Amino acid sequence: MSFSPLIRQLIDSLRILPGVGQKTAQRMALQMLERDRSGGLRLAQALTAAMEGVGHCSQCRTLSEDHLCPQCADPRRDDSLLCVVEGPLDVFAVEQTGYRGRYFVLKGHLSPLDGLGPEAIGIPELLARIAAGSFSEIILATNPTVEGEATAHYIAQMLLGKGLSLTRIAHGVPLGGELELVDGGTLAHALAGRRPMVE
Amino acid sequence: MSFSPLIRQLIDSLRILPGVGQKTAQRMALQMLERDRSGGLRLAQALTAAMEGVGHCSQCRTLSEDHLCPQCADPRRDDSLLCVVEGPLDVFAVEQTGYRGRYFVLKGHLSPLDGLGPEAIGIPELLARIAAGSFSEIILATNPTVEGEATAHYIAQMLLGKGLSLTRIAHGVPLGGELELVDGGTLAHALAGRRPMVE
Repeated sequence: MSFSPLIRQLIDSLRILPGVGQKTAQRMALQMLERDRSGGLRLAQALTAAMEGVGHCSQCRTLSEDHLCPQCADPRRDDSLLCVVEGPLDVFAVEQTGYRGRYFVLKGHLSPLDGLGPEAIGIPELLARIAAGSFSEIILATNPTVEGEATAHYIAQMLLGKGLSLTRIAHGVPLGGELELVDGGTLAHALAGRRPMVE
Repeated sequence: MSFSPLIRQLIDSLRILPGVGQKTAQRMALQMLERDRSGGLRLAQALTAAMEGVGHCSQCRTLSEDHLCPQCADPRRDDSLLCVVEGPLDVFAVEQTGYRGRYFVLKGHLSPLDGLGPEAIGIPELLARIAAGSFSEIILATNPTVEGEATAHYIAQMLLGKGLSLTRIAHGVPLGGELELVDGGTLAHALAGRRPMVE
């Protein structure tokens, strides 16, 4: 009881959003109904347009409603660099760094236990993209997790002997932290990867 | 750059939800696009239906698409009790307690500094509802804040001398907490409102 059917249905539907439980969904639904109905309608239109319109970029496989995503369509980017990431959000993260090469977006990482092999995450498409391009360096920027490392190593194995420079993003201490709070594995990577201060 | 226009528009629209910033909106948008497009479309339909269809219950003023909300339409409820709350979410909270009287939902609380006087929050409608009903007790369940207390006192003043029992929800220590963590004002209320253990 207590909420009318349309409101209940809205609350239930909001719960598909990640991190949104019953209480948050209630607050979201009632705030929109009480204060921002036009915003709620705009959100409904944006949802419909995106769910029906967005596909995958034919070149880098990221989410995009156009045949080519903004990164692939930009002629001013460096065609010798290819950055391989696990998902579309990683493209956004790497873009923030000022990187201006090309991308290839996998569908996650290798996970044999979940039945996700090379085909499932798009490695054949990656190899085809590399064969069709004129890259000199492939940057493997999968996540610094066990699965991400395994995926990077697998891809590196497949590309050995093709005359490409294969690189992996560096592991080390993040900026702004305190050394005593960094976990041992990260600190070991940071020590092993130490670099001369005066080059 | 980095996201295509439809995705950018969806991320911007998601930010009208309370507590959702840029990063959360990105995660929500991409998760729906990658894993749950049908859920996203259902959410869009539920939003449209609710934003266009939901009005106010003609009796208690809560949000409802029907002329009478589920609480007002239920003939088995106690018509001698009226619980006055600040908003629709409070109805839901009071319902959880097993209360089975009637409700009246104000539009928030009195806030003269924001220009919200008795008319703005629906006190004339409350008085009309009480005059038309057969209530014996009015439970003032506005929030335990300065504004909520002021609103409860104002309503009590308006209802003096009408032969109604006017009650306010109790202040005291919440269940399950520790006394040393309770603020002084609450503890003072709990002491002043102490009750005999054997009645």
